[in-house]
Amino acid sequence: MQKPILAKGTRDFNSVELYKRNYIINIIKDNFSKFGFNPIETPSFERSETLLGKYGEEGERLIFKILKSGNYLKDINSENLEISKLTSKIVDKALRYDLTVPFARYVVQNQNDIALPFKRYQIQNVWRADRPQRGRYREFTQCDADVIGSESLMQEIDFILLFENVFSDLNLIGCQIRINSRKILAAICEIFNCNDKFSILTNQLDKLDKLEKKQIIENLFSKGFDMNTINSIFEIIDLSSNFEQNKDELRSRLSASEIGLEGVDDLEFVYSYFSKNKLSKSDLILDIGLARGIDYYTGLIFEVLPPKKVRLGSIAGGGRYDNLTEIFGLKNMSGIGISFGLDRIFLALDELNLFPPISTSSVKLLVLNFGVDLSFDLIRIVSILRDNKIKCEFYPDSVSVKKQMNYANKNSIPYVLFYGDEEKEKNCFNLKDMNSGEQQMLELKELIKVLKVSSETEI
Amino acid sequence: MQKPILAKGTRDFNSVELYKRNYIINIIKDNFSKFGFNPIETPSFERSETLLGKYGEEGERLIFKILKSGNYLKDINSENLEISKLTSKIVDKALRYDLTVPFARYVVQNQNDIALPFKRYQIQNVWRADRPQRGRYREFTQCDADVIGSESLMQEIDFILLFENVFSDLNLIGCQIRINSRKILAAICEIFNCNDKFSILTNQLDKLDKLEKKQIIENLFSKGFDMNTINSIFEIIDLSSNFEQNKDELRSRLSASEIGLEGVDDLEFVYSYFSKNKLSKSDLILDIGLARGIDYYTGLIFEVLPPKKVRLGSIAGGGRYDNLTEIFGLKNMSGIGISFGLDRIFLALDELNLFPPISTSSVKLLVLNFGVDLSFDLIRIVSILRDNKIKCEFYPDSVSVKKQMNYANKNSIPYVLFYGDEEKEKNCFNLKDMNSGEQQMLELKELIKVLKVSSETEI
Repeated sequence: MQKPILAKGTRDFNSVELYKRNYIINIIKDNFSKFGFNPIETPSFERSETLLGKYGEEGERLIFKILKSGNYLKDINSENLEISKLTSKIVDKALRYDLTVPFARYVVQNQNDIALPFKRYQIQNVWRADRPQRGRYREFTQCDADVIGSESLMQEIDFILLFENVFSDLNLIGCQIRINSRKILAAICEIFNCNDKFSILTNQLDKLDKLEKKQIIENLFSKGFDMNTINSIFEIIDLSSNFEQNKDELRSRLSASEIGLEGVDDLEFVYSYFSKNKLSKSDLILDIGLARGIDYYTGLIFEVLPPKKVRLGSIAGGGRYDNLTEIFGLKNMSGIGISFGLDRIFLALDELNLFPPISTSSVKLLVLNFGVDLSFDLIRIVSILRDNKIKCEFYPDSVSVKKQMNYANKNSIPYVLFYGDEEKEKNCFNLKDMNSGEQQMLELKELIKVLKVSSETEI
Repeated sequence: MQKPILAKGTRDFNSVELYKRNYIINIIKDNFSKFGFNPIETPSFERSETLLGKYGEEGERLIFKILKSGNYLKDINSENLEISKLTSKIVDKALRYDLTVPFARYVVQNQNDIALPFKRYQIQNVWRADRPQRGRYREFTQCDADVIGSESLMQEIDFILLFENVFSDLNLIGCQIRINSRKILAAICEIFNCNDKFSILTNQLDKLDKLEKKQIIENLFSKGFDMNTINSIFEIIDLSSNFEQNKDELRSRLSASEIGLEGVDDLEFVYSYFSKNKLSKSDLILDIGLARGIDYYTGLIFEVLPPKKVRLGSIAGGGRYDNLTEIFGLKNMSGIGISFGLDRIFLALDELNLFPPISTSSVKLLVLNFGVDLSFDLIRIVSILRDNKIKCEFYPDSVSVKKQMNYANKNSIPYVLFYGDEEKEKNCFNLKDMNSGEQQMLELKELIKVLKVSSETEI
């Protein structure tokens, strides 16, 4: 006998969980569509080359690799028996790690068929061999929207509005949309002569919400930043929060770096829109410590935190990337994209009790079973009702009424139908409302009418 | 530079393809729901043990295996360097091969939370390392509905009605629902003393639609069936097609086998319903040569072929399995399930031109861009329109009007808005209908009204 257990970090979804997930997905999808994004889908696995070398060292380790089919050891001898050599020989595919790299591959591959700027959304699963924890699984759904083929900062503003719209439709009020520019981080490295340590810096900054600042300082020091530099970096980071207040100071600190000033200009463009057109449901907050580890970001970056009373990491994020399609042979294609984290949003809504009431039953009616002789009659009845767009089912065995009623209760089915020999003889139907307990004898026509009305008032 | 190419046997879906796929999926989903099935989802990968040993030798080879994360060679030495020994050591997970085995695992694992009989549907991808061909991919979507926990043959009838309803809603008229019983195939082996060759027989019978009968006979002979037996088997198989006509002959041929007669009784029950309640859109055809290779079927089995003018294999199938949950420790749980093949149905509808007209654009309106100075105005306009539930977007760059109009045309956007300095000054909006070419100057209120009306008449 095998134990029925799940692979580590994965989960099943029951109907109630799925109805709730779909509630979120539909709101995200409707907004994507309202903002002009059309859907595409890419395969779950890609050739290894497509995915490797895009996500930094840490990401790379977390990619699930698929064994070649057939005799994968054909060309292997014992000298290759070393991970670094063996893996590339026995593996040729890997599961999608995010939706952005496959999207870049898609754009380049289909460049002759798509109209630029190309706007697409993609709601699909991704896989990461991360250590599972609350709200973090090895398979999870990402909801991404991207535009590629234009550098316009109008899109940064549009994506902030998209965040605001989605979270407002979900009644998740008071989210923090944190914003920064990778150009400012690049400028910091430029100014302090540590361009070679850019990844180390962004990597450590990403841990600011998990570790004490003291710890980050120690880490940076041990990785070769000197203490003066670290202090100066944190002086710049401390200019976070209110952009309008700190922009002049920021500009003067970064004045030696052209790219740094560009970053401030980008932020200024975005902020000047929102100073006139205030967000009503979320806050837009400058966070110079925001780095977003993934290698491909080059411009403005975002991360959305849920309302403060919910203790969860970011529920959405994104940013601009200028060179992503270049690795696949298409240059000068600036892109920007964002991603909603379905699981974290689910947890946030659950914690705040923000899900609307959701029915756990798909059917309106259970036809009870009073004996094999009536089998065909029951099938006929449900067929007629279904032809009238009424969702219903029969109980397949003539067990005790109690057992059948239990089934109806456990599945929250609102009506049951008694149809035995007596009803058959009288050619009528005994309908019981499971909520009120009320029972009524009806002709077929009336039965259909009652159930149809009740179906229309369904949520 | 990397070539932007897909992994073998996989594909991307563009928006038009997705809208068409979703058209099919929604019809299937609506019917599942109408028939009383609720959705569940299981993870894309399962522990290897969960999947291995369930699909027969051929199926086993086609399962995609996932390399362990981290140092997967930790406990390997060169003596293990042999596929049979190595694979189980370096692999601990595999991609889902179908939805039925994970469903069985789910039922056993959640037996205390679910009400029996348990009806669920599941629309998810599965992966098989098959040789790709027309309509067959290495990643594809299955649409399954199953009931577990009742032996009632009423369900077989209900599933046939489900086939009829789905294909009728898709306007796919004239499908052949082929039916057989694995009990009859078991009886054949019993009668001819070749119980040990059951898998060989079912395996060969499955090829009847692809190979010449002569070839199958040769194969059976080479695999140890004697010529007399083969002839007798085909005499029984020739009793296919019309059950009512052949049932007595079938019964007499199988009279030595209890299980064989049971199989005929099962068929008789199903046929007696449909002799009184004829299917109007599909044909129900007895096919004693139908075997369905997968190991777990034990009772009635189905396969649906598209209308004859479409040259495609089966577009749906299913059957009863009595012992599937037993491997996970739950005995006496008869189940029955069916599966719709999305890709083949897609091909059939495409070939017969049965897709309804589908818009390739999600938006109603493109706001043209006449200069950076107007950027914020454009964002304000789309924001207001979106607040009025109008799907729209702005063009992000102030390039030539021609280029912007091209974008609208290529994306089939029905309206464009001219909003330049002149319109801003007059506080009005110049709307162009892309189909009629008509242009009108509108105030904001009127603009909203026109676009709202046109949104409501959208399909």
